[in-house]
Amino acid sequence: MRAEILSIGTEIMFGEITDTNAAYIASALPEYGIDLLWVTQVGDNPARLKEAFARAWERSDYIFCTGGLGPTEDDITRETIADMLGEALYVDAEQERVLHETFAARGITPFPPRNIKQANLIPSARAIKNPRGTAPGWWVERDGKVIAVMPGPPAEMHHMWDAEVAPELERRADSILVARTLKTSGIGEAAVDEMLSPLLAGVNPSIGIYARADGVSARIAAKAPTREEAWALIRPVEEEARKILGPAIWGIDDDSLASGVGRMLRDQGLTLGLMESASGGAIASAITDIEGASAYFTGSLVTYATDMKIAMGVPAEVIAEHGVISRETAEAMAKTARERLGCDIALSVTGIAGAEPMEGQPGGTMHLALTDGTSMDYTTFRYFQGREQSKRRIVLQALTMLRRYLMDRAARG
Amino acid sequence: MRAEILSIGTEIMFGEITDTNAAYIASALPEYGIDLLWVTQVGDNPARLKEAFARAWERSDYIFCTGGLGPTEDDITRETIADMLGEALYVDAEQERVLHETFAARGITPFPPRNIKQANLIPSARAIKNPRGTAPGWWVERDGKVIAVMPGPPAEMHHMWDAEVAPELERRADSILVARTLKTSGIGEAAVDEMLSPLLAGVNPSIGIYARADGVSARIAAKAPTREEAWALIRPVEEEARKILGPAIWGIDDDSLASGVGRMLRDQGLTLGLMESASGGAIASAITDIEGASAYFTGSLVTYATDMKIAMGVPAEVIAEHGVISRETAEAMAKTARERLGCDIALSVTGIAGAEPMEGQPGGTMHLALTDGTSMDYTTFRYFQGREQSKRRIVLQALTMLRRYLMDRAARG
Repeated sequence: MRAEILSIGTEIMFGEITDTNAAYIASALPEYGIDLLWVTQVGDNPARLKEAFARAWERSDYIFCTGGLGPTEDDITRETIADMLGEALYVDAEQERVLHETFAARGITPFPPRNIKQANLIPSARAIKNPRGTAPGWWVERDGKVIAVMPGPPAEMHHMWDAEVAPELERRADSILVARTLKTSGIGEAAVDEMLSPLLAGVNPSIGIYARADGVSARIAAKAPTREEAWALIRPVEEEARKILGPAIWGIDDDSLASGVGRMLRDQGLTLGLMESASGGAIASAITDIEGASAYFTGSLVTYATDMKIAMGVPAEVIAEHGVISRETAEAMAKTARERLGCDIALSVTGIAGAEPMEGQPGGTMHLALTDGTSMDYTTFRYFQGREQSKRRIVLQALTMLRRYLMDRAARG
Repeated sequence: MRAEILSIGTEIMFGEITDTNAAYIASALPEYGIDLLWVTQVGDNPARLKEAFARAWERSDYIFCTGGLGPTEDDITRETIADMLGEALYVDAEQERVLHETFAARGITPFPPRNIKQANLIPSARAIKNPRGTAPGWWVERDGKVIAVMPGPPAEMHHMWDAEVAPELERRADSILVARTLKTSGIGEAAVDEMLSPLLAGVNPSIGIYARADGVSARIAAKAPTREEAWALIRPVEEEARKILGPAIWGIDDDSLASGVGRMLRDQGLTLGLMESASGGAIASAITDIEGASAYFTGSLVTYATDMKIAMGVPAEVIAEHGVISRETAEAMAKTARERLGCDIALSVTGIAGAEPMEGQPGGTMHLALTDGTSMDYTTFRYFQGREQSKRRIVLQALTMLRRYLMDRAARG
């Protein structure tokens, strides 16, 4: 099955918004055996939108489109599809009722007359529910082809995809592709490849090895008529791979470094605290992006100013002797954080967030330390690609350092 | 002039990466009087890539394309253009020299033979320098049409655009469109519209009023043969608008709330400290994204655990009496932060980061307080749309609160 995505909206053509809906849809399609061949972005322009739909209808089995479902005259997605298929728009009584209810529930009375077009259907279309917004989607089916029409706002679109469109694709699919990704740490790509070589010959499931920013991943993918059968194919291979890779595995599937570290902290019954300087709170923010972080995260002393480091307990003489940007200060910060925050392990960062050198060290130099009260880990690196990018790198390094510590600790038992 | 963007890469088709290059290019084109009509994303597939180029060549004056310039056989952007134009590829001696130099400078010797294809040109193409990577771009000019070919990695693409492609477009443009955006706070969209009505009749410059998440913006745009002439048209209108809007203006153009707040703090010679709970360091991180934040930002006590709030000096009895999620605790946190961090003003947040209720308050409830030692501002709101989205909202609210305080303070003199 060949698919095309149409992302519709003049604001995309002006670069005012970046279209993220297409990638959301694209990443889901392989699961249902659908090949995405084209993505087209086009403004709310009648002639061009018609051209885009006509071309997509000609070359694709599935058209997934987002945007242009609003109540204004600019929004012409429905009208264009009706026109292309030569079908007449009509106000659907049931959709009109739902629309009136939605507006009443939001306290918008009287019902704004221009919104009535959001209740429009054509004979080949049925409405798709949109509990997150006012405009229902359309599921159009004709001549063996499908157009799934979804709203542009990502929150509405994601919900409609997950709740309605994806399940429908699953019902229609001849086979389902599922995958389990094992995320490892501490072994290189070639080593993982060699370790898993007895399993690599398989076609279904197949295994792919990928080097990523957060370590080397092994992805086991299987295809079968149903989801259950596909998982049944994966299970024994996953068990084998887990036996082989053992403690190198720190997470699966969508696990991020922050969620992986969080799970290890929880499993090991440990609490974590931070003292952050150059990262400016970004490590704490990444850790607290994870649901349930309060179970293991004490907090962070974001000591951006040198005075604040000292006020929080970092010995002034360490800073005076070695400088703020030093291994010694990083280690003193980790020790101080652990004592002040009463946590089991503490991690610290000090460095130069900007491009300019300081204290004789080049811009982007970072010092990280981690202590559990007994051991002290230390690492340094240099990276500068603009402040935000550099902060992301610090977060990656800090979480990697924590992951290594926690994996070693678990291995020691 | 009509333009089309082609974003090329199979990884886009699998949703593995979100194409951000198109929006980067799209937002720059109006400046040069170029209308973007189409964006097409397509994989590294010979037949489809050729179809995409042929269609773009037929309907557009400018084709901006990114991706497919790597050294592997998959990368076929150059080959496809040569094929479409019926021109033969040849290894350009100068590009070959540059390529050898680039690899030698990176310590990659001997030169990898397969990379030689990155020195390819066709008669209608000249190379565009790429100091951030190995693959040069192509500037193709034939039959009154242009294809600008750039690498896919955003860092390389942005640099090539800014340093080479955009200046070339500026040289070729009949007129340049420039704009000044005045960002305001504390007045509604309708009020700004009314205040600026004496200026709104103008066509060049024209003024547009927009309600954004960070306040109401007035955008003054002018078109003229040169950049200087366009700015000369804008200047008197901007002066008028500044007189009318006066102290409601907190920033211009790309100023973010964080940079606007930073500038006001610096102008007023004030330092800022934070005590953050539900935001988990995200406010500190936003503030330290701004170059030079160390001049006014002391730091943040990210007191995620209640014990840490108390350890940092928030009175246990306030928490016991009113709960952690309360106005009183927020105010005590702000006071404590100001004292502990020795800063001029301190802002605090306490609330429920998750969807579940706590202490009898619904999920997403937030309490924010701000003190300068004399006055105490307080605000509360409720919002929950997933943790990351909710944290972004807290940051927006906190920075808006800071901006209001600093604008009032400046107005008081």
